[in-house]
Amino acid sequence: MITPDRLRAFLEPRSFALIGASDKSTFSALVHRNLTAAGHGESTYLVNRRNGEVHGRPTYPTCEAVGRPIDLAFVMVPAAAAPGAVRDAAAAGARGVLVLSSGYAEAGEEGKARQRELVALAEELGIVLMGPNVLGFVNVAAGVPAMALADPPAVPGNVALISQSGASCGAMKDFAALAGVGLSHVITVGNEAMVTVGHLVDCLVDDDRTEAIAVFMEGIRDPGVFERAARRAAAAGKALVILKAGRSELAARAAASHTGALVGDDRVVDAVFERLGVIRVDTIEDMLVTAGVAAHTGPLERPGLGVVSISGGACDIIADLAQDAGAELPELAPATVERLAAVMPAYGASHNPLDITGAAIMNPELWRESVAAVGADPGVGVVVAVNSLPWREDGAPFYGQKFVDAIGAGMAESKAPALYLTQVTQPIGAQTRSVLDAGGVAHVVPGLRLGVDAVARVARWSARRGRDEAAAVPPPAVALPDGDLFSEVDARNLLEAAGVPVVPARHVHSAKEAADAAAEFGTPVAMKIVSVDIAHKSDLGCVRLGVTAERAGTAYEEIVEAGRGHRLDGVLVSPMRAAATELLAGVTRDPDWGLMLAVALGGVLVEVLDDVALAPLPVSPARARSMLDGLRGAAVLRGVRGRPAADLDRLAEVIAAVGRLAEALGPDLESLEVNPLRVAGGEIEALDALVVRRRPGNEED
Amino acid sequence: MITPDRLRAFLEPRSFALIGASDKSTFSALVHRNLTAAGHGESTYLVNRRNGEVHGRPTYPTCEAVGRPIDLAFVMVPAAAAPGAVRDAAAAGARGVLVLSSGYAEAGEEGKARQRELVALAEELGIVLMGPNVLGFVNVAAGVPAMALADPPAVPGNVALISQSGASCGAMKDFAALAGVGLSHVITVGNEAMVTVGHLVDCLVDDDRTEAIAVFMEGIRDPGVFERAARRAAAAGKALVILKAGRSELAARAAASHTGALVGDDRVVDAVFERLGVIRVDTIEDMLVTAGVAAHTGPLERPGLGVVSISGGACDIIADLAQDAGAELPELAPATVERLAAVMPAYGASHNPLDITGAAIMNPELWRESVAAVGADPGVGVVVAVNSLPWREDGAPFYGQKFVDAIGAGMAESKAPALYLTQVTQPIGAQTRSVLDAGGVAHVVPGLRLGVDAVARVARWSARRGRDEAAAVPPPAVALPDGDLFSEVDARNLLEAAGVPVVPARHVHSAKEAADAAAEFGTPVAMKIVSVDIAHKSDLGCVRLGVTAERAGTAYEEIVEAGRGHRLDGVLVSPMRAAATELLAGVTRDPDWGLMLAVALGGVLVEVLDDVALAPLPVSPARARSMLDGLRGAAVLRGVRGRPAADLDRLAEVIAAVGRLAEALGPDLESLEVNPLRVAGGEIEALDALVVRRRPGNEED
Repeated sequence: MITPDRLRAFLEPRSFALIGASDKSTFSALVHRNLTAAGHGESTYLVNRRNGEVHGRPTYPTCEAVGRPIDLAFVMVPAAAAPGAVRDAAAAGARGVLVLSSGYAEAGEEGKARQRELVALAEELGIVLMGPNVLGFVNVAAGVPAMALADPPAVPGNVALISQSGASCGAMKDFAALAGVGLSHVITVGNEAMVTVGHLVDCLVDDDRTEAIAVFMEGIRDPGVFERAARRAAAAGKALVILKAGRSELAARAAASHTGALVGDDRVVDAVFERLGVIRVDTIEDMLVTAGVAAHTGPLERPGLGVVSISGGACDIIADLAQDAGAELPELAPATVERLAAVMPAYGASHNPLDITGAAIMNPELWRESVAAVGADPGVGVVVAVNSLPWREDGAPFYGQKFVDAIGAGMAESKAPALYLTQVTQPIGAQTRSVLDAGGVAHVVPGLRLGVDAVARVARWSARRGRDEAAAVPPPAVALPDGDLFSEVDARNLLEAAGVPVVPARHVHSAKEAADAAAEFGTPVAMKIVSVDIAHKSDLGCVRLGVTAERAGTAYEEIVEAGRGHRLDGVLVSPMRAAATELLAGVTRDPDWGLMLAVALGGVLVEVLDDVALAPLPVSPARARSMLDGLRGAAVLRGVRGRPAADLDRLAEVIAAVGRLAEALGPDLESLEVNPLRVAGGEIEALDALVVRRRPGNEED
Repeated sequence: MITPDRLRAFLEPRSFALIGASDKSTFSALVHRNLTAAGHGESTYLVNRRNGEVHGRPTYPTCEAVGRPIDLAFVMVPAAAAPGAVRDAAAAGARGVLVLSSGYAEAGEEGKARQRELVALAEELGIVLMGPNVLGFVNVAAGVPAMALADPPAVPGNVALISQSGASCGAMKDFAALAGVGLSHVITVGNEAMVTVGHLVDCLVDDDRTEAIAVFMEGIRDPGVFERAARRAAAAGKALVILKAGRSELAARAAASHTGALVGDDRVVDAVFERLGVIRVDTIEDMLVTAGVAAHTGPLERPGLGVVSISGGACDIIADLAQDAGAELPELAPATVERLAAVMPAYGASHNPLDITGAAIMNPELWRESVAAVGADPGVGVVVAVNSLPWREDGAPFYGQKFVDAIGAGMAESKAPALYLTQVTQPIGAQTRSVLDAGGVAHVVPGLRLGVDAVARVARWSARRGRDEAAAVPPPAVALPDGDLFSEVDARNLLEAAGVPVVPARHVHSAKEAADAAAEFGTPVAMKIVSVDIAHKSDLGCVRLGVTAERAGTAYEEIVEAGRGHRLDGVLVSPMRAAATELLAGVTRDPDWGLMLAVALGGVLVEVLDDVALAPLPVSPARARSMLDGLRGAAVLRGVRGRPAADLDRLAEVIAAVGRLAEALGPDLESLEVNPLRVAGGEIEALDALVVRRRPGNEED
């Protein structure tokens, strides 16, 4: 059992054994070099059965032979020798092992079995096992570079980085260093045999030095652990920023081939991330920059982005990028405009993005006052100053220091959190950092697109944090039928009990009753067989549409005849409805994430646009409303070409009620589909529904 | 008149006058410093009326007083003194002037007048004027940093950079230096009073050292000049990569306020760029990296991107990014897979992107052979090797030099052009460049997204280059009616003459004729008034749909009654058609770019999706086909929900014929709209059309 406490202890070792240390091994050399350079040389012990000299130092045949307690052991021996190494480490008091060797789950069935055995052994010995097929970790703040990676970060920051990929981890920490994103930890997880990404997130949420967590992953190993950890991160206001590769079919196929991780339906992942408050990104650069911004600003009080720039061109590029990213650029409040009028040159206009023009070159104070004014605007949640910075590490004094100083002074006066933004992606090296430090500028983002995208994501994440999903409100208890399946009548009863309006119907058992029902409705009717064991009624000829009262009796006989041989319970007769907007609202069970609600526009749009909104249950009416608003074809619901606008709030309630019903049915439910859900202005009615009970045995899925 | 020859001479000056040189002027100091540092100190003369010492050197009261020929004069005096300065420069033999001072078109009506006068003067004197409100240019290859910008590029490359923004130009050339994109020129154009972006592109297309041209612009100053230059660039295989800000409404408004440039409908700009073979980008980074890639590869023979990487994570990220960018990642050919099988480790799979795994660390040759093999694959147009590079300028030897060497050797063997790609954005400094040079690697792109996006754009541009638009084929001459407007009957005749199928109709002049026509069609009919001066027939009640033969006579009388007071010419009677897919095909006149053809899906989709394809005329059937394919709702045309698939080739021919008709009508045409164009499988018919003649006076637009 991995607990945050055990994991925390695992991540703060003070003594080390390198089991399988060898001059020939790059891993061994890198780990030894890193630990020695960080001052752990004396508490790092090299273990090698052959007992010679390695890395210029004496070796021990076993950990036990060291005779001193060992906190963490690196296992770098072939798979056959690994269990012995783990036992030896445990005997020497190790709390954990890092299994760097490969040849486990990533290498076929035999490897999987070896991996299972190794995990069982670690559990038996009560130690934490990370890997196998892992490079290790760097606990930057604790000064522990327990990692087979060149050039580990040494200056602690507030972003924790976790990577399923070891090969890409070097590039990630390099970009963090280049972009001025400080790291608290760098952790590779390898095959996640025991410690998964979820365990680490759970542990790091409680780490005082970590304000945001960046993760590169290809699959989610343990959904339950991950979900709990993500919820805790969101509650703590620590952004969890994930680059999950495998969106494309090609990548999903590739990832499945080179990792042991499951690669699920990417739209489900999107929906789950949205629910858990995870920020999803597409590139390593976006992952680190977004985490850095979130760690610096924390949750924003409001989404508005205020921009101050000396370049009109940059203002225009930002306006375009903000529109693409969905970042809000609020108009400045009258008080802000007035305050700016006192300092702005006559020909400048006080809009957002604010172009303070070349006048700031003669008058750096313009920077201070404009950053402070925009940062105090009631619509602005974060203020960004766009200006250049030196990037060469040549020791030359920066001619623009006075502008950085003025910007820093304005940031200190700003009420909203503030960022410095360069026009293009550039390194933020030591010299650049010292220019910023001298000016009192805390955080910088290199490049307009990286900055605008990051702010947009942090703003959306901040807004979402406040929104609590309603707990499931079960519908009134309904008498569940006994059979395996629910009939159309059962489904109607369940929907009605859950508060979903359903088209009126008469359940008839004779041609005479059918004709009477049709006459009573006074319009052409739809007629459908009632049966628990006919899945595709239309295909069998058990559905008739637009039947007149005169034809209803004959239609009854024909429908029943068509259904012969099945368990029949008469026919449902409903009035035909005029053409209107049709939706689909359905619930299915995802093997990893449980019940998922899907909402789609019916008809041509769903096929043309592949336009489906997905969310894990529970779904509140507010959440259902935002699912509707997020449909690409949402304009249809708002009324186009003479169609009335749908009552979206009422529609959202109905959709949430569909979700509540699915929850109330609980483990009994395999799937539930209301299709079509007819919407004509405020008239909302389920015209047809299908509820499928979970078959015994399905629970094992 | 700006000719390429005159402009070329302007860009290669050997002697300089700084008119208005002053120690107080940052411009003056920067220009003087740059020219002196580049070895032009002796041929740079400082001109100042007060005749004191400036920048530690003697000054002259006028250019003429210098007594030596001057090629280029920098005008840094207030607007009132500018004409005198220009005359003085011309008298001293200057071929051109750079007017750095502001206070012209960007500063209101008075400034505009001053600018016009200055241009008239330059034309009268026969000299080239660049600016005003400009920072100048750097001709890197010629060693002429004629620019008021710190740290001008000194190492020549093959990308020319042109910027409307001076303030952002510094960031642009900095990023070029950081990203390893070599520049042949850096040119700011300021207000473009005389020399515009189009003139410069035209000139640079003929420059042997320039292989691609990157442009930052907010508006297109002289569409005719620009269009001609862009066509020449495309024909020469030199990519023109443009970051045109102002896509968003906000940016368009902002740009209009701080530049004098026109900001047109952005969708028209997109359509024109597409036609001219311009590559459009959204960020400075994309602009320079894409230009750098295009300059290195030239037009690709085929679009396929082949990827070789040591990181599986990078492969997955690339697959996702490629899908987003529309880059093709072809499956490797059997021969390639076989060749790779000889070197790949047993557990590796030979897919594209190709993960050569950590095995390459022990066996660098794997790099050489895999890059060479993928680069020789018949589906691959460009091969990319993804690997790390050092980024610190610390003089430390690079442990991975052997991998770079192997990659370089593979690239030398590759048949397709090759790029080195780093996993993250990082600087390509002198030390990194020397690592690449030692390995024989010619071009590098820093960062997966930048690289994949750039390759996707260059591939699209390459594919488009081959496609020639058909010249306009005029329809058979038709007798044009005399009036200002075309009636429905005139429009039908024109369409038919142009080869556009039109729904049958009878032009009737009495109730009796109407009834006979309806009876003859044998279905309900549509009836419309024929009039040259009723624009909105439906609003007046002059259209009836679904009229039966019995009602047709009465309907005739009612329609004519409703049209009383207008110039009437009877009624058109047509058979009603069953519901089917409807399109709109229309031509309108853009003030900058002339006749534009628009194609949209009718009905709900056009409103929901804002789904319109636009192209300047002429439009060939092939081009019309790609417009149809590019519609977001194109799936509707391919047949959904039981609707038959449209005959897309025939439909494309009909749409091209609409365009041909518009061209044939030439200056007479204001707009032409076929709406709806009914499509039911292979049945294609214009159901209604409106042709509006250009009114006298409109030609001045």
